[in-house]
Amino acid sequence: MSEPGDPKPGTVYLVGSGPGDPELLTVKAKRLLERADVVLHDRLPGPAIIDQLPADRCEDVGKRAGGDRTSQPEINERLVELASAGNSVVRLKGGDSFVFGRGGEEAEYLAARDVPFEVVPGVTSATAAPAVAGIPITHRDHASSVSLVTGHEDPDKEESAVDWEALAALGGTIVVLMGVSRLPDYTDALLEAGADPETPVALVERATWPEQRVATGTLETIVAARDEVGIEPPAVTVVGEVAATRDRVLEYLANEPDGEPVEPDTEV
Amino acid sequence: MSEPGDPKPGTVYLVGSGPGDPELLTVKAKRLLERADVVLHDRLPGPAIIDQLPADRCEDVGKRAGGDRTSQPEINERLVELASAGNSVVRLKGGDSFVFGRGGEEAEYLAARDVPFEVVPGVTSATAAPAVAGIPITHRDHASSVSLVTGHEDPDKEESAVDWEALAALGGTIVVLMGVSRLPDYTDALLEAGADPETPVALVERATWPEQRVATGTLETIVAARDEVGIEPPAVTVVGEVAATRDRVLEYLANEPDGEPVEPDTEV
Ligand SMILES: C[S@@+](CC[C@H](N)C(=O)[O-])C[C@H]1O[C@@H](n2cnc3c(N)ncnc32)[C@H](O)[C@@H]1O
Ligand SMILES: C[S@@+](CC[C@H](N)C(=O)[O-])C[C@H]1O[C@@H](n2cnc3c(N)ncnc32)[C@H](O)[C@@H]1O
Repeated sequence: MSEPGDPKPGTVYLVGSGPGDPELLTVKAKRLLERADVVLHDRLPGPAIIDQLPADRCEDVGKRAGGDRTSQPEINERLVELASAGNSVVRLKGGDSFVFGRGGEEAEYLAARDVPFEVVPGVTSATAAPAVAGIPITHRDHASSVSLVTGHEDPDKEESAVDWEALAALGGTIVVLMGVSRLPDYTDALLEAGADPETPVALVERATWPEQRVATGTLETIVAARDEVGIEPPAVTVVGEVAATRDRVLEYLANEPDGEPVEPDTEV
Repeated sequence: MSEPGDPKPGTVYLVGSGPGDPELLTVKAKRLLERADVVLHDRLPGPAIIDQLPADRCEDVGKRAGGDRTSQPEINERLVELASAGNSVVRLKGGDSFVFGRGGEEAEYLAARDVPFEVVPGVTSATAAPAVAGIPITHRDHASSVSLVTGHEDPDKEESAVDWEALAALGGTIVVLMGVSRLPDYTDALLEAGADPETPVALVERATWPEQRVATGTLETIVAARDEVGIEPPAVTVVGEVAATRDRVLEYLANEPDGEPVEPDTEV
Protein backbone atom coordinates (compact mmCIF):
# COMPACT_ATOMS: atom_id res chain seq x y z
CA MET A 1 0.00 0.00 0.00
CA SER A 2 1.48 3.32 -0.90
CA GLU A 3 0.81 6.29 1.37
CA PRO A 4 1.02 10.00 0.68
CA GLY A 5 4.63 11.03 1.10
CA ASP A 6 5.97 7.67 0.00
CA PRO A 7 8.79 7.92 -2.54
CA LYS A 8 7.72 6.83 -6.04
CA PRO A 9 8.62 3.36 -7.30
CA GLY A 10 11.16 3.50 -10.11
CA THR A 11 12.43 6.95 -9.12
CA VAL A 12 15.92 7.89 -7.89
CA TYR A 13 16.18 10.64 -5.27
CA LEU A 14 19.53 12.46 -5.30
CA VAL A 15 19.61 13.51 -1.65
CA GLY A 16 22.14 15.64 0.23
CA SER A 17 22.65 14.68 3.87
CA GLY A 18 24.06 17.98 5.12
CA PRO A 19 27.40 18.18 6.94
CA GLY A 20 26.87 15.33 9.40
CA ASP A 21 24.63 16.34 12.33
CA PRO A 22 21.48 14.22 11.81
CA GLU A 23 19.38 17.27 12.80
CA LEU A 24 20.77 19.08 9.74
CA LEU A 25 19.10 16.60 7.43
CA THR A 26 16.16 18.30 5.76
CA VAL A 27 12.68 17.14 6.73
CA LYS A 28 12.37 15.76 3.20
CA ALA A 29 15.64 13.81 3.33
CA LYS A 30 14.58 12.26 6.63
CA ARG A 31 11.20 11.20 5.23
CA LEU A 32 12.75 9.68 2.11
CA LEU A 33 15.41 7.82 4.08
CA GLU A 34 12.70 6.33 6.29
CA ARG A 35 10.55 5.20 3.38
CA ALA A 36 12.74 4.42 0.38
CA ASP A 37 13.12 0.83 -0.74
CA VAL A 38 16.90 1.15 -1.01
CA VAL A 39 19.50 3.68 0.16
CA LEU A 40 22.87 3.88 -1.63
CA HIS A 41 25.36 5.88 0.40
CA ASP A 42 29.05 6.53 0.78
CA ARG A 43 30.94 7.49 3.96
CA LEU A 44 30.87 11.31 3.83
CA PRO A 45 27.46 11.73 5.54
CA GLY A 46 29.31 10.54 8.66
CA PRO A 47 28.65 7.89 11.31
CA ALA A 48 25.84 9.73 13.14
CA ILE A 49 23.67 9.61 10.01
CA ILE A 50 24.88 6.31 8.55
CA ASP A 51 24.37 4.42 11.80
CA GLN A 52 20.70 5.47 11.81
CA LEU A 53 20.02 4.08 8.34
CA PRO A 54 18.02 0.86 8.22
CA ALA A 55 20.72 -1.77 7.64
CA ASP A 56 18.51 -4.12 5.61
CA ARG A 57 17.74 -1.42 3.02
CA CYS A 58 21.24 0.05 2.68
CA GLU A 59 24.11 -0.37 0.28
CA ASP A 60 27.44 1.19 1.18
CA VAL A 61 29.09 2.15 -2.08
CA GLY A 62 31.78 4.18 -0.31
CA LYS A 63 34.16 1.32 0.24
CA ARG A 64 34.20 -2.39 -0.36
CA ALA A 65 35.57 -5.39 1.47
CA GLY A 66 38.97 -5.11 -0.18
CA GLY A 67 39.20 -1.42 0.71
CA ASP A 68 38.39 -0.26 -2.84
CA ARG A 69 35.60 2.16 -3.57
CA THR A 70 32.78 1.29 -5.89
CA SER A 71 33.58 3.17 -9.11
CA GLN A 72 31.28 5.91 -10.41
CA PRO A 73 30.25 3.87 -13.49
CA GLU A 74 29.31 0.96 -11.19
CA ILE A 75 27.24 3.28 -8.96
CA ASN A 76 25.48 4.77 -11.99
CA GLU A 77 24.63 1.31 -13.28
CA ARG A 78 23.40 0.12 -9.88
CA LEU A 79 21.03 3.11 -9.63
CA VAL A 80 19.52 2.29 -13.01
CA GLU A 81 19.24 -1.40 -12.14
CA LEU A 82 17.48 -0.79 -8.82
CA ALA A 83 15.07 1.84 -10.20
CA SER A 84 14.27 -0.21 -13.30
CA ALA A 85 13.30 -3.10 -11.01
CA GLY A 86 10.63 -0.81 -9.52
CA ASN A 87 12.38 0.35 -6.36
CA SER A 88 12.30 3.83 -4.92
CA VAL A 89 15.97 4.63 -4.48
CA VAL A 90 17.72 7.25 -2.37
CA ARG A 91 21.26 8.13 -3.46
CA LEU A 92 22.63 9.79 -0.30
CA LYS A 93 25.68 12.07 -0.43
CA GLY A 94 27.42 14.25 2.13
CA GLY A 95 26.45 17.94 2.05
CA ASP A 96 24.65 18.76 -1.20
CA SER A 97 24.88 16.30 -4.11
CA PHE A 98 25.45 19.07 -6.65
CA VAL A 99 28.38 20.79 -4.88
CA PHE A 100 31.49 18.78 -5.74
CA GLY A 101 29.34 15.68 -5.33
CA ARG A 102 29.07 14.26 -8.87
CA GLY A 103 25.30 14.50 -8.60
CA GLY A 104 25.22 16.10 -12.04
CA GLU A 105 26.89 13.11 -13.62
CA GLU A 106 24.40 10.78 -11.97
CA ALA A 107 21.48 12.93 -13.11
CA GLU A 108 22.69 12.89 -16.72
CA TYR A 109 23.25 9.14 -16.63
CA LEU A 110 19.76 8.48 -15.26
CA ALA A 111 18.07 10.80 -17.77
CA ALA A 112 19.93 9.15 -20.64
CA ARG A 113 18.52 5.77 -19.51
CA ASP A 114 14.93 7.00 -19.08
CA VAL A 115 15.01 6.85 -15.27
CA PRO A 116 13.05 9.64 -13.53
CA PHE A 117 14.90 11.36 -10.71
CA GLU A 118 14.35 14.10 -8.17
CA VAL A 119 16.96 16.39 -6.64
CA VAL A 120 16.66 16.97 -2.89
CA PRO A 121 19.06 19.78 -1.98
CA GLY A 122 21.03 19.52 1.25
CA VAL A 123 23.04 21.86 3.44
CA THR A 124 26.47 21.94 1.83
CA SER A 125 29.57 21.80 4.03
CA ALA A 126 30.93 24.70 1.93
CA THR A 127 28.53 27.06 3.72
CA ALA A 128 27.79 25.10 6.90
CA ALA A 129 31.34 24.40 8.06
CA PRO A 130 32.35 28.08 8.11
CA ALA A 131 28.96 29.08 9.60
CA VAL A 132 29.07 26.78 12.63
CA ALA A 133 32.63 27.94 13.29
CA GLY A 134 31.34 31.52 13.51
CA ILE A 135 32.44 32.60 10.03
CA PRO A 136 29.99 34.33 7.64
CA ILE A 137 31.32 33.69 4.12
CA THR A 138 29.82 36.93 2.82
CA HIS A 139 29.91 40.36 4.39
CA ARG A 140 28.25 43.54 3.27
CA ASP A 141 31.41 45.60 3.64
CA HIS A 142 34.23 43.27 2.67
CA ALA A 143 33.01 40.14 0.88
CA SER A 144 30.59 40.58 -2.00
CA SER A 145 31.67 37.30 -3.56
CA VAL A 146 32.56 33.85 -2.33
CA SER A 147 34.18 31.21 -4.50
CA LEU A 148 33.91 27.51 -3.73
CA VAL A 149 36.83 25.63 -5.23
CA THR A 150 38.46 22.21 -5.09
CA GLY A 151 41.90 21.83 -3.57
CA HIS A 152 42.20 18.37 -4.96
CA GLU A 153 44.05 18.16 -8.23
CA ASP A 154 43.10 15.62 -10.79
CA PRO A 155 46.27 13.53 -11.20
CA ASP A 156 45.41 13.15 -14.90
CA LYS A 157 45.62 16.89 -15.51
CA GLU A 158 48.93 18.66 -15.87
CA GLU A 159 47.78 22.13 -14.99
CA SER A 160 46.05 23.16 -11.81
CA ALA A 161 42.33 23.20 -12.61
CA VAL A 162 41.82 26.21 -10.37
CA ASP A 163 43.14 29.62 -11.41
CA TRP A 164 44.51 30.90 -8.08
CA GLU A 165 45.71 34.09 -9.71
CA ALA A 166 42.19 35.00 -10.87
CA LEU A 167 40.90 34.11 -7.41
CA ALA A 168 43.42 36.40 -5.75
CA ALA A 169 42.37 39.16 -8.18
CA LEU A 170 38.70 38.61 -7.36
CA GLY A 171 39.38 39.46 -3.73
CA GLY A 172 36.32 37.81 -2.16
CA THR A 173 36.11 34.90 0.24
CA ILE A 174 37.57 31.58 -0.96
CA VAL A 175 36.25 28.28 0.41
CA VAL A 176 38.37 25.27 -0.51
CA LEU A 177 36.94 21.76 -0.35
CA MET A 178 39.18 18.69 -0.40
CA GLY A 179 42.07 20.99 0.43
CA VAL A 180 43.83 19.70 3.54
CA SER A 181 46.90 18.04 2.04
CA ARG A 182 47.51 20.64 -0.67
CA LEU A 183 47.13 23.60 1.70
CA PRO A 184 50.83 24.57 1.29
CA ASP A 185 50.48 24.58 -2.51
CA TYR A 186 47.51 26.91 -2.77
CA THR A 187 48.45 29.24 0.07
CA ASP A 188 51.76 29.69 -1.78
CA ALA A 189 49.95 30.19 -5.09
CA LEU A 190 47.75 32.90 -3.54
CA LEU A 191 50.75 34.65 -1.98
CA GLU A 192 52.61 34.57 -5.28
CA ALA A 193 49.54 36.06 -6.96
CA GLY A 194 49.82 39.01 -4.60
CA ALA A 195 47.38 38.15 -1.80
CA ASP A 196 48.11 39.85 1.54
CA PRO A 197 50.16 37.48 3.75
CA GLU A 198 48.05 38.65 6.74
CA THR A 199 44.79 37.41 5.11
CA PRO A 200 42.95 35.41 7.79
CA VAL A 201 42.47 31.67 7.11
CA ALA A 202 40.50 29.02 9.00
CA LEU A 203 40.28 25.25 8.64
CA VAL A 204 37.11 23.55 9.85
CA GLU A 205 37.26 19.76 10.16
CA ARG A 206 34.23 17.48 10.57
CA ALA A 207 31.90 20.41 11.02
CA THR A 208 28.82 19.56 13.16
CA TRP A 209 30.31 16.17 14.08
CA PRO A 210 31.14 15.62 17.77
CA GLU A 211 34.82 15.63 16.68
CA GLN A 212 34.62 19.08 15.03
CA ARG A 213 37.99 20.87 15.12
CA VAL A 214 39.12 24.28 13.97
CA ALA A 215 42.53 25.81 13.24
CA THR A 216 43.01 29.49 12.50
CA GLY A 217 45.87 31.63 11.22
CA THR A 218 46.86 33.65 8.18
CA LEU A 219 48.03 32.74 4.67
CA GLU A 220 51.52 32.56 6.15
CA THR A 221 50.82 30.67 9.38
CA ILE A 222 47.93 28.33 8.56
CA VAL A 223 50.08 25.37 7.47
CA ALA A 224 51.78 25.33 10.87
CA ALA A 225 48.38 25.71 12.59
CA ARG A 226 47.00 22.79 10.57
CA ASP A 227 49.87 20.59 11.73
CA GLU A 228 49.67 21.70 15.35
CA VAL A 229 45.93 20.98 15.61
CA GLY A 230 46.35 17.88 13.43
CA ILE A 231 43.53 18.76 11.02
CA GLU A 232 42.56 15.87 8.77
CA PRO A 233 40.00 15.45 5.97
CA PRO A 234 37.12 16.10 5.66
CA ALA A 235 37.73 19.80 6.25
CA VAL A 236 37.09 23.07 4.47
CA THR A 237 39.49 25.99 4.26
CA VAL A 238 38.15 29.55 4.45
CA VAL A 239 40.43 32.29 3.11
CA GLY A 240 39.46 35.95 3.54
CA GLU A 241 38.79 38.79 5.96
CA VAL A 242 35.61 37.05 7.14
CA ALA A 243 37.68 34.25 8.71
CA ALA A 244 38.68 36.67 11.47
CA THR A 245 35.05 36.98 12.60
CA ARG A 246 35.39 33.77 14.58
CA ASP A 247 37.78 35.33 17.10
CA ARG A 248 35.38 38.17 17.74
CA VAL A 249 32.33 35.97 18.42
CA LEU A 250 33.78 32.72 19.78
CA GLU A 251 33.09 33.43 23.44
CA TYR A 252 29.33 33.61 22.72
CA LEU A 253 29.10 30.95 20.00
CA ALA A 254 27.01 28.04 21.29
CA ASN A 255 27.88 25.78 18.33
CA GLU A 256 31.17 24.44 19.62
CA PRO A 257 31.14 20.69 20.46
CA ASP A 258 29.86 19.89 23.99
CA GLY A 259 27.75 23.02 23.72
CA GLU A 260 30.57 24.84 25.50
CA PRO A 261 32.61 27.49 23.73
CA VAL A 262 36.28 26.53 23.39
CA GLU A 263 38.82 29.13 24.46
CA PRO A 264 40.57 30.61 21.41
CA ASP A 265 44.06 29.92 22.76
CA THR A 266 43.48 26.20 23.22
CA GLU A 267 43.05 25.72 19.50
CA VAL A 268 46.02 26.83 17.50
CA MET B 1 9.24 23.12 32.56
CA SER B 2 12.03 22.82 30.06
CA GLU B 3 12.36 19.61 28.07
CA PRO B 4 15.33 18.12 26.25
CA GLY B 5 15.52 19.75 22.84
CA ASP B 6 14.00 23.01 24.05
CA PRO B 7 15.89 26.08 22.90
CA LYS B 8 17.81 27.78 25.70
CA PRO B 9 16.36 30.88 27.38
CA GLY B 10 18.39 33.98 26.61
CA THR B 11 19.89 32.49 23.44
CA VAL B 12 19.43 33.68 19.85
CA TYR B 13 19.30 31.03 17.11
CA LEU B 14 20.34 32.32 13.68
CA VAL B 15 18.34 29.91 11.56
CA GLY B 16 18.24 29.48 7.76
CA SER B 17 14.85 28.41 6.36
CA GLY B 18 16.07 26.96 3.06
CA PRO B 19 14.65 28.14 -0.28
CA GLY B 20 10.96 28.00 0.60
CA ASP B 21 9.59 24.44 0.52
CA PRO B 22 8.74 23.69 4.18
CA GLU B 23 10.15 20.18 3.72
CA LEU B 24 13.57 21.76 3.01
CA LEU B 25 13.71 23.17 6.52
CA THR B 26 16.25 21.19 8.50
CA VAL B 27 14.96 18.97 11.28
CA LYS B 28 16.67 21.34 13.71
CA ALA B 29 15.09 24.48 12.26
CA LYS B 30 11.66 22.85 12.49
CA ARG B 31 12.19 21.89 16.13
CA LEU B 32 13.40 25.35 17.09
CA LEU B 33 10.52 27.06 15.27
CA GLU B 34 8.06 24.88 17.14
CA ARG B 35 9.57 25.57 20.53
CA ALA B 36 11.16 29.03 20.58
CA ASP B 37 9.56 31.76 22.67
CA VAL B 38 9.76 34.27 19.80
CA VAL B 39 10.44 34.05 16.05
CA LEU B 40 11.71 37.14 14.18
CA HIS B 41 11.40 36.69 10.45
CA ASP B 42 11.35 38.62 7.21
CA ARG B 43 9.51 37.69 3.98
CA LEU B 44 12.17 35.71 2.08
CA PRO B 45 11.37 32.31 3.66
CA GLY B 46 8.16 32.52 1.62
CA PRO B 47 4.46 32.09 2.40
CA ALA B 48 4.49 28.29 2.75
CA ILE B 49 6.86 28.54 5.71
CA ILE B 50 5.68 31.86 7.16
CA ASP B 51 2.02 30.80 7.19
CA GLN B 52 2.93 27.80 9.35
CA LEU B 53 4.63 29.88 12.03
CA PRO B 54 2.66 30.31 15.25
CA ALA B 55 1.18 33.83 14.89
CA ASP B 56 1.25 34.63 18.60
CA ARG B 57 5.00 34.06 18.87
CA CYS B 58 6.03 35.80 15.62
CA GLU B 59 7.36 39.20 14.72
CA ASP B 60 7.56 40.14 11.06
CA VAL B 61 10.54 42.45 10.68
CA GLY B 62 10.44 42.26 6.88
CA LYS B 63 8.01 45.08 6.43
CA ARG B 64 6.01 47.37 8.65
CA ALA B 65 2.58 48.92 8.52
CA GLY B 66 3.78 51.91 6.51
CA GLY B 67 5.50 49.64 4.00
CA ASP B 68 8.99 50.33 5.41
CA ARG B 69 11.29 47.58 6.49
CA THR B 70 12.57 47.37 10.01
CA SER B 71 16.15 48.62 9.77
CA GLN B 72 19.06 46.31 10.56
CA PRO B 73 20.06 48.30 13.68
CA GLU B 74 16.47 47.99 14.96
CA ILE B 75 16.49 44.22 14.34
CA ASN B 76 19.83 43.86 16.12
CA GLU B 77 18.51 45.80 19.12
CA ARG B 78 15.27 43.80 19.24
CA LEU B 79 17.21 40.51 19.30
CA VAL B 80 19.25 41.72 22.27
CA GLU B 81 16.16 43.01 24.07
CA LEU B 82 14.22 39.76 23.66
CA ALA B 83 17.13 37.51 24.61
CA SER B 84 18.11 39.67 27.60
CA ALA B 85 14.54 39.33 28.89
CA GLY B 86 15.11 35.56 29.03
CA ASN B 87 13.44 34.48 25.80
CA SER B 88 14.71 31.84 23.43
CA VAL B 89 14.71 33.64 20.10
CA VAL B 90 14.80 32.31 16.54
CA ARG B 91 16.00 34.77 13.91
CA LEU B 92 14.69 33.16 10.71
CA LYS B 93 16.14 34.07 7.30
CA GLY B 94 15.59 32.73 3.80
CA GLY B 95 18.19 30.20 2.60
CA ASP B 96 21.23 30.28 4.86
CA SER B 97 21.74 33.26 7.20
CA PHE B 98 25.44 33.51 6.39
CA VAL B 99 25.10 33.64 2.58
CA PHE B 100 24.22 37.24 1.69
CA GLY B 101 21.98 37.21 4.74
CA ARG B 102 23.67 39.65 7.15
CA GLY B 103 23.85 36.84 9.72
CA GLY B 104 27.47 37.76 10.36
CA GLU B 105 26.54 41.28 11.36
CA GLU B 106 23.89 39.98 13.73
CA ALA B 107 26.34 37.49 15.25
CA GLU B 108 28.91 40.22 15.89
CA TYR B 109 26.32 42.53 17.40
CA LEU B 110 25.06 39.80 19.76
CA ALA B 111 28.56 38.78 20.84
CA ALA B 112 29.49 42.41 21.53
CA ARG B 113 26.45 42.64 23.87
CA ASP B 114 27.17 39.37 25.71
CA VAL B 115 24.24 37.50 24.14
CA PRO B 116 24.93 33.82 23.40
CA PHE B 117 23.90 32.66 19.95
CA GLU B 118 23.87 29.51 17.85
CA VAL B 119 24.12 29.25 14.08
CA VAL B 120 21.75 26.76 12.42
CA PRO B 121 22.82 26.41 8.79
CA GLY B 122 20.13 26.17 6.12
CA VAL B 123 19.96 25.12 2.47
CA THR B 124 21.02 28.23 0.57
CA SER B 125 19.13 29.22 -2.58
CA ALA B 126 22.53 29.71 -4.21
CA THR B 127 22.92 25.93 -4.43
CA ALA B 128 19.28 24.79 -4.19
CA ALA B 129 17.75 26.92 -6.93
CA PRO B 130 20.11 25.65 -9.65
CA ALA B 131 19.88 22.07 -8.28
CA VAL B 132 16.10 21.76 -8.40
CA ALA B 133 16.17 23.19 -11.93
CA GLY B 134 18.48 20.33 -12.96
CA ILE B 135 21.73 22.32 -12.87
CA PRO B 136 24.79 21.03 -10.99
CA ILE B 137 26.89 24.10 -10.15
CA THR B 138 30.12 22.08 -10.20
CA HIS B 139 31.24 19.51 -12.71
CA ARG B 140 34.31 17.31 -12.65
CA ASP B 141 35.25 18.14 -16.23
CA HIS B 142 34.25 21.76 -16.71
CA ALA B 143 33.52 23.53 -13.43
CA SER B 144 36.10 23.21 -10.67
CA SER B 145 34.98 26.49 -9.11
CA VAL B 146 31.70 28.24 -8.47
CA SER B 147 31.47 31.86 -7.38
CA LEU B 148 28.44 33.22 -5.53
CA VAL B 149 28.13 36.96 -6.07
CA THR B 150 25.64 39.74 -5.54
CA GLY B 151 24.05 41.48 -8.52
CA HIS B 152 22.77 44.22 -6.31
CA GLU B 153 24.92 47.31 -6.21
CA ASP B 154 25.16 49.34 -3.07
CA PRO B 155 23.89 52.77 -4.16
CA ASP B 156 26.44 54.34 -1.76
CA LYS B 157 29.35 52.83 -3.63
CA GLU B 158 30.64 54.31 -6.87
CA GLU B 159 32.41 51.27 -8.20
CA SER B 160 30.84 47.89 -8.81
CA ALA B 161 31.66 45.77 -5.77
CA VAL B 162 32.03 42.69 -7.93
CA ASP B 163 35.00 42.32 -10.27
CA TRP B 164 33.31 40.82 -13.35
CA GLU B 165 36.58 40.81 -15.24
CA ALA B 166 38.25 38.59 -12.63
CA LEU B 167 35.16 36.37 -12.65
CA ALA B 168 35.33 35.98 -16.41
CA ALA B 169 39.04 35.11 -16.08
CA LEU B 170 38.28 32.51 -13.42
CA GLY B 171 36.12 30.61 -15.88
CA GLY B 172 34.03 28.60 -13.40
CA THR B 173 30.30 28.73 -12.73
CA ILE B 174 28.89 32.08 -11.55
CA VAL B 175 25.75 32.20 -9.41
CA VAL B 176 24.29 35.69 -9.01
CA LEU B 177 21.91 36.49 -6.17
CA MET B 178 19.75 39.62 -6.18
CA GLY B 179 20.52 39.91 -9.87
CA VAL B 180 17.24 40.14 -11.80
CA SER B 181 17.07 43.86 -12.57
CA ARG B 182 20.77 44.32 -13.24
CA LEU B 183 21.03 41.28 -15.52
CA PRO B 184 21.77 43.45 -18.60
CA ASP B 185 24.62 45.21 -16.75
CA TYR B 186 26.54 42.15 -15.68
CA THR B 187 25.94 40.05 -18.79
CA ASP B 188 27.43 43.01 -20.70
CA ALA B 189 30.30 43.26 -18.25
CA LEU B 190 31.09 39.57 -18.69
CA LEU B 191 30.93 39.84 -22.49
CA GLU B 192 33.23 42.87 -22.44
CA ALA B 193 35.63 40.90 -20.25
CA GLY B 194 35.84 38.29 -23.00
CA ALA B 195 33.33 35.66 -21.91
CA ASP B 196 31.96 33.50 -24.74
CA PRO B 197 28.60 34.94 -25.94
CA GLU B 198 27.31 31.34 -26.23
CA THR B 199 27.86 30.67 -22.51
CA PRO B 200 24.63 29.08 -21.20
CA VAL B 201 22.68 31.07 -18.60
CA ALA B 202 19.61 30.14 -16.52
CA LEU B 203 17.37 32.17 -14.23
CA VAL B 204 15.52 30.30 -11.49
CA GLU B 205 12.76 32.23 -9.74
CA ARG B 206 11.09 31.17 -6.47
CA ALA B 207 12.86 27.83 -6.47
CA THR B 208 10.89 25.10 -4.63
CA TRP B 209 7.83 27.39 -4.34
CA PRO B 210 4.68 26.31 -6.21
CA GLU B 211 5.30 29.35 -8.48
CA GLN B 212 8.83 28.26 -9.47
CA ARG B 213 9.78 29.53 -12.94
CA VAL B 214 12.85 29.08 -15.10
CA ALA B 215 14.21 30.96 -18.10
CA THR B 216 17.19 29.74 -20.09
CA GLY B 217 19.41 31.22 -22.78
CA THR B 218 22.95 32.41 -23.33
CA LEU B 219 24.88 35.51 -22.25
CA GLU B 220 23.46 37.17 -25.35
CA THR B 221 19.85 35.99 -25.19
CA ILE B 222 19.05 35.73 -21.48
CA VAL B 223 17.77 39.30 -21.05
CA ALA B 224 15.12 38.66 -23.72
CA ALA B 225 14.29 35.29 -22.12
CA ARG B 226 13.94 36.95 -18.71
CA ASP B 227 11.43 39.41 -20.15
CA GLU B 228 9.50 36.81 -22.10
CA VAL B 229 9.03 34.54 -19.07
CA GLY B 230 8.55 37.58 -16.84
CA ILE B 231 11.09 36.50 -14.22
CA GLU B 232 10.89 38.55 -11.02
CA PRO B 233 12.84 38.52 -7.75
CA PRO B 234 13.65 36.41 -5.85
CA ALA B 235 15.64 34.57 -8.49
CA VAL B 236 19.19 33.36 -8.98
CA THR B 237 21.17 33.55 -12.20
CA VAL B 238 23.49 30.69 -13.16
CA VAL B 239 26.18 31.47 -15.73
CA GLY B 240 28.36 28.68 -17.12
CA GLU B 241 28.52 25.48 -19.14
CA VAL B 242 26.66 23.64 -16.36
CA ALA B 243 23.50 25.66 -17.08
CA ALA B 244 23.01 23.61 -20.25
CA THR B 245 22.59 20.42 -18.20
CA ARG B 246 18.96 21.31 -17.59
CA ASP B 247 18.00 20.75 -21.22
CA ARG B 248 19.57 17.30 -21.21
CA VAL B 249 17.76 16.08 -18.08
CA LEU B 250 14.49 18.04 -18.00
CA GLU B 251 12.31 15.28 -19.38
CA TYR B 252 13.17 13.05 -16.41
CA LEU B 253 13.41 15.73 -13.71
CA ALA B 254 10.63 15.18 -11.17
CA ASN B 255 11.27 18.50 -9.39
CA GLU B 256 9.21 20.72 -11.64
CA PRO B 257 6.10 22.23 -9.98
CA ASP B 258 3.04 19.91 -9.98
CA GLY B 259 5.45 17.01 -10.07
CA GLU B 260 5.18 17.13 -13.86
CA PRO B 261 8.11 18.11 -16.01
CA VAL B 262 7.48 21.26 -18.04
CA GLU B 263 8.22 21.05 -21.75
CA PRO B 264 11.36 23.00 -22.55
CA ASP B 265 9.68 24.98 -25.31
CA THR B 266 6.90 26.31 -23.10
CA GLU B 267 9.41 28.21 -21.03
CA VAL B 268 11.54 30.54 -23.04
C1 LIG C 1 33.81 15.28 -2.51
S1 LIG C 1 33.55 16.76 -1.61
C2 LIG C 1 31.81 16.67 -1.35
C3 LIG C 1 31.18 17.94 -0.83
C4 LIG C 1 29.72 17.77 -0.47
N1 LIG C 1 28.95 17.43 -1.65
C5 LIG C 1 29.14 19.00 0.20
O1 LIG C 1 28.29 19.68 -0.38
O2 LIG C 1 29.52 19.28 1.35
C6 LIG C 1 34.26 16.33 -0.04
C7 LIG C 1 34.71 17.53 0.76
O3 LIG C 1 33.61 18.12 1.41
C8 LIG C 1 34.06 18.79 2.58
N2 LIG C 1 33.25 18.30 3.73
C9 LIG C 1 32.21 17.45 3.67
N3 LIG C 1 31.66 17.30 4.90
C10 LIG C 1 32.36 18.08 5.75
C11 LIG C 1 32.27 18.40 7.13
N4 LIG C 1 31.33 17.85 7.91
N5 LIG C 1 33.15 19.28 7.65
C12 LIG C 1 34.09 19.85 6.88
N6 LIG C 1 34.22 19.60 5.57
C13 LIG C 1 33.37 18.73 5.01
C14 LIG C 1 35.54 18.51 2.72
O4 LIG C 1 36.23 19.58 2.11
C15 LIG C 1 35.68 17.27 1.88
O5 LIG C 1 37.00 17.11 1.41
C1 LIG D 1 19.36 38.90 0.45
S1 LIG D 1 19.69 37.50 -0.52
C2 LIG D 1 19.54 36.24 0.72
C3 LIG D 1 20.03 34.88 0.29
C4 LIG D 1 19.74 33.80 1.32
N1 LIG D 1 20.41 34.07 2.55
C5 LIG D 1 20.10 32.41 0.82
O1 LIG D 1 21.04 31.80 1.33
O2 LIG D 1 19.42 31.93 -0.09
C6 LIG D 1 18.19 37.37 -1.46
C7 LIG D 1 18.38 36.62 -2.76
O3 LIG D 1 18.37 35.22 -2.53
C8 LIG D 1 17.92 34.56 -3.69
N2 LIG D 1 16.78 33.68 -3.32
C9 LIG D 1 16.31 33.46 -2.09
N3 LIG D 1 15.32 32.53 -2.11
C10 LIG D 1 15.20 32.14 -3.40
C11 LIG D 1 14.37 31.18 -4.07
N4 LIG D 1 13.48 30.42 -3.42
N5 LIG D 1 14.53 31.04 -5.41
C12 LIG D 1 15.42 31.78 -6.09
N6 LIG D 1 16.23 32.69 -5.49
C13 LIG D 1 16.12 32.87 -4.17
C14 LIG D 1 17.55 35.63 -4.70
O4 LIG D 1 18.66 35.84 -5.53
C15 LIG D 1 17.31 36.82 -3.80
O5 LIG D 1 17.48 38.03 -4.49
